[in-house]
Amino acid sequence: MYYIGIDIGGTNIKAAMVARDGTILEKYTIKTPKNLIAFYEGLQHCIYRVTQKSGTTTGKIVGIGVGIPGNVDKDGMVYNFVNLGIEREALGEKLSKLYTGAKVRIANDAYVAGLAEHEFGALKDCRNAILLTLGTGIGSSLVLNGSLYTSTQGFTPECGHMSIRKNDFDCNCGNNGCFETFCSATGFTKQAILFLEKNTLNTSLRPSGLSPIQILEAYAQGDAAAVRITDRFVEDLSIGIGNLINMFLPDKVALGGGFSKGLSPLLKKIEEKSNAKALNKFKQKTSVVRAELLNDAGVVGAAMLNL
Amino acid sequence: MYYIGIDIGGTNIKAAMVARDGTILEKYTIKTPKNLIAFYEGLQHCIYRVTQKSGTTTGKIVGIGVGIPGNVDKDGMVYNFVNLGIEREALGEKLSKLYTGAKVRIANDAYVAGLAEHEFGALKDCRNAILLTLGTGIGSSLVLNGSLYTSTQGFTPECGHMSIRKNDFDCNCGNNGCFETFCSATGFTKQAILFLEKNTLNTSLRPSGLSPIQILEAYAQGDAAAVRITDRFVEDLSIGIGNLINMFLPDKVALGGGFSKGLSPLLKKIEEKSNAKALNKFKQKTSVVRAELLNDAGVVGAAMLNL
Repeated sequence: MYYIGIDIGGTNIKAAMVARDGTILEKYTIKTPKNLIAFYEGLQHCIYRVTQKSGTTTGKIVGIGVGIPGNVDKDGMVYNFVNLGIEREALGEKLSKLYTGAKVRIANDAYVAGLAEHEFGALKDCRNAILLTLGTGIGSSLVLNGSLYTSTQGFTPECGHMSIRKNDFDCNCGNNGCFETFCSATGFTKQAILFLEKNTLNTSLRPSGLSPIQILEAYAQGDAAAVRITDRFVEDLSIGIGNLINMFLPDKVALGGGFSKGLSPLLKKIEEKSNAKALNKFKQKTSVVRAELLNDAGVVGAAMLNL
Repeated sequence: MYYIGIDIGGTNIKAAMVARDGTILEKYTIKTPKNLIAFYEGLQHCIYRVTQKSGTTTGKIVGIGVGIPGNVDKDGMVYNFVNLGIEREALGEKLSKLYTGAKVRIANDAYVAGLAEHEFGALKDCRNAILLTLGTGIGSSLVLNGSLYTSTQGFTPECGHMSIRKNDFDCNCGNNGCFETFCSATGFTKQAILFLEKNTLNTSLRPSGLSPIQILEAYAQGDAAAVRITDRFVEDLSIGIGNLINMFLPDKVALGGGFSKGLSPLLKKIEEKSNAKALNKFKQKTSVVRAELLNDAGVVGAAMLNL
């Protein structure tokens, strides 16, 4: 039984042949093409390569699962397809025609990562839990009553777009105050740059080319600006997570995404502050932890769509 | 088969004998006593009266369901018991001892109202939906995947305590910016009074003894201050509901509570603004409607805990 998991990102497309127990047998990565024809060619090439390296043929593939950075409905219709400038694309239908023997399933990348974390990672055995992926935006995935939640029409929630407080700049979605404009990798960096432009503290940080990891490293060394910026980030992250606690009372919140590794020393503080924002009459506590699968969550979760 | 539903409020205790189909056979109301001994006496009196009026005896009661304005765990232990100044009370255990033949179940009043609305009212046949009760605070109840959600430890979510923006005053819970400090009946009134104290618009509204219904009536007559106050209220309500849409993408949001009747002319506007706050890539729309059972939701839903 061969299961393929494909993780379509803005930068790379990763494909993997995954065993029933979540083990990755083969992996292959290409740069994300910039037009639709090259995109389908690249996708087929990825599938061919992991299939070949696994010593099998595409005819023996049971399932192809795809995680995409956008939303998708039950029929595999993809909306707002990142980087390809396409508003609607019948990805599910097209892949099904290309690989007639395989079951094709497509889902939002946050959903897919949640699936992997719930089955094999930080959210294992959780009845109610949340995965937040802090990247360009904030991806979210909710485990409710033991399974991944989607709306009646099959959409994955977008916790990154809840308003938490007034922001100096609007979100790309057109609203103001979205959680991700403060706490995604991009939001954190943008808040830091605004702070550096307005303040004259002695600091090692330079607005140009700034990254979340640089800020967190300067914070660890006690850099005055980095401390102010990071404290505000922790406060905002705690408002967002506190809201989620008031809303679901999850057992656990896991933080994933590129710079979540750098958040390890702050997790205890984030957990305390987030729980302090929740109504104190709840005699339960939500743990805040790091996601575990990180880079592999995408391909493993995508393969799991058919497991 | 006789089912009793009891709705314990800060002001009144309502009891009803309810049929399997949700019909209320008998109803009885008393003022909520101010100490624990009088409370249990009152409760027993209510049960005795609706039982007697239904032409039966307490021995034939199959189930007693109770909705309480606070939180309760799976064992019927009640926390922060309103108006009685009690932090923990083993209400479930005590009632079970008093009525040995009956199944006793206790739940948060918002949960209970959600149960009734989902079975017989505005949220009937909804797979994913939310009831918000705008009263002293904002009670919330989530229908997810076709059933009422509670946390792993049995608690009902408190959407009223999500932070939506900075507020001039803190919430009773100790945090700032809670949804209910803007949009509960109390919050709406308090925001209006603050506005009236700060502004010198010609208005019929007087801060002393002000009620949400008065504000909405003045709004309907084009009173300049009432228009400003109500527009801000609609905006804040839409931020809160918009957050819930981003988070759950519910089919419907129903608004209940004392002054929700007065919101009828504003529902269309609230619905539009709330959906506009949600990420536009979702090709689905959440309806915003009024709750239907209103005053009876408490007793009917409480009885349903045992149905």
